[in-house]
Amino acid sequence: MNLILLFDSDFIAPGRVRLSGRRFTHIQDILKAEQSQLLTVGKINGLMGRGEVKAKTKDSIELDVKLDTKPPDSLSLTLILALPRPPMFKRILFSAAMLGVKKIIVLNFNRVEKSLWNSSSLKPKAIEEQLILGLEQAKDTIMPEVIIKKGFKPFVQDELPALVKGKLALVAHPGGDTVIPAKAGIHNQPITLVIGPEGGIIDYEIEALKAARCKTIDLGPRILRTDSVLPYILGRFF
Amino acid sequence: MNLILLFDSDFIAPGRVRLSGRRFTHIQDILKAEQSQLLTVGKINGLMGRGEVKAKTKDSIELDVKLDTKPPDSLSLTLILALPRPPMFKRILFSAAMLGVKKIIVLNFNRVEKSLWNSSSLKPKAIEEQLILGLEQAKDTIMPEVIIKKGFKPFVQDELPALVKGKLALVAHPGGDTVIPAKAGIHNQPITLVIGPEGGIIDYEIEALKAARCKTIDLGPRILRTDSVLPYILGRFF
Repeated sequence: MNLILLFDSDFIAPGRVRLSGRRFTHIQDILKAEQSQLLTVGKINGLMGRGEVKAKTKDSIELDVKLDTKPPDSLSLTLILALPRPPMFKRILFSAAMLGVKKIIVLNFNRVEKSLWNSSSLKPKAIEEQLILGLEQAKDTIMPEVIIKKGFKPFVQDELPALVKGKLALVAHPGGDTVIPAKAGIHNQPITLVIGPEGGIIDYEIEALKAARCKTIDLGPRILRTDSVLPYILGRFF
Repeated sequence: MNLILLFDSDFIAPGRVRLSGRRFTHIQDILKAEQSQLLTVGKINGLMGRGEVKAKTKDSIELDVKLDTKPPDSLSLTLILALPRPPMFKRILFSAAMLGVKKIIVLNFNRVEKSLWNSSSLKPKAIEEQLILGLEQAKDTIMPEVIIKKGFKPFVQDELPALVKGKLALVAHPGGDTVIPAKAGIHNQPITLVIGPEGGIIDYEIEALKAARCKTIDLGPRILRTDSVLPYILGRFF
């Protein structure tokens, strides 16, 4: 937690918050914050700044907050993700929020196990929890949007072409048509990135994605696990 | 498991292996391999190739193997890593092996909790387990070397200068002196990468690393978690 994220419900007066639970425990046990100490804080979907420790009880802490700094720029990357198993889904939500992704579309693919769609990791509260952890890690305040689309075909045929228009649209796919070496110098342009299921993307899906103007991209001779693809793309293109 | 890693002890005759345990379960339950099916295999520290299913019992499987393909080139990156907590240490070992890192030096830093040095995740068997999983994910056979150095000062003063000679030596450090944007076009040169503890690298350590010809590098306005730094560096520089 490199930033303590604040919500409307934390404010007990203008410029004063009272925190309990996880954030209190972190401030108390990890940061070992004393009276008057300044902590990095940020208001959800708002400014970042400093919080000064003003009062403590055994299960809560009050901070005077001053918010005056913009959060870092968003990453101009839209992530389209085959629903992974719960531990991997959590990790990717965390990682996407940490890396500055602000739009995540979760999609069904042939090799997504059907039972995963009943997973409790898809509940809004469970998703939000990981996104908050990612923002706190990165020092960011802007909550990503997560859209559960499920149906592959209607999304890819009817919505994806408009979404990728004017953007570099990439499908991470071992043996993909395109190799974009670091030296190609393609950078800082908006990207739509498709990450398929661990078991791979089937031919029909690859063809449908190509028809929607996506390029398959080969990330090298090694098969990267899903959660390494996003930081790799960040390093390569931004 | 995109490749089934074979060891000397698996060979029951030249060109014939018998597998049980984890690899058998994977071939049986995930790959659902039938008689005569070809599987991707590789011999530890050797060639890759194909294994043809020849015989099955209820707890073992025999393959005829033909090894004729070189594993992918190693990544010319040496990782110097502050010992993380066990779950993160496991994930980074997996990730480093997956990404093709062949030398990992584990070091103490001021903000590494002393108790971590007694962790069972440091046992050779526990380390090897994660490295094998990483190689199987990536389709590689060359086992990385993991060196447990512990003492920061003697290593950084006496060994590091020779290790980084002629290489780009980078310390991932928020607010670091150097920013290397994707467009800088620095790529495919040998790198020594230092990843400090989650709590950060203290000033004394930064100065000692700089004295050993390392550059501190700022990876952007977001604080990346340890396990995202390696794939980020791979995407940026290779």
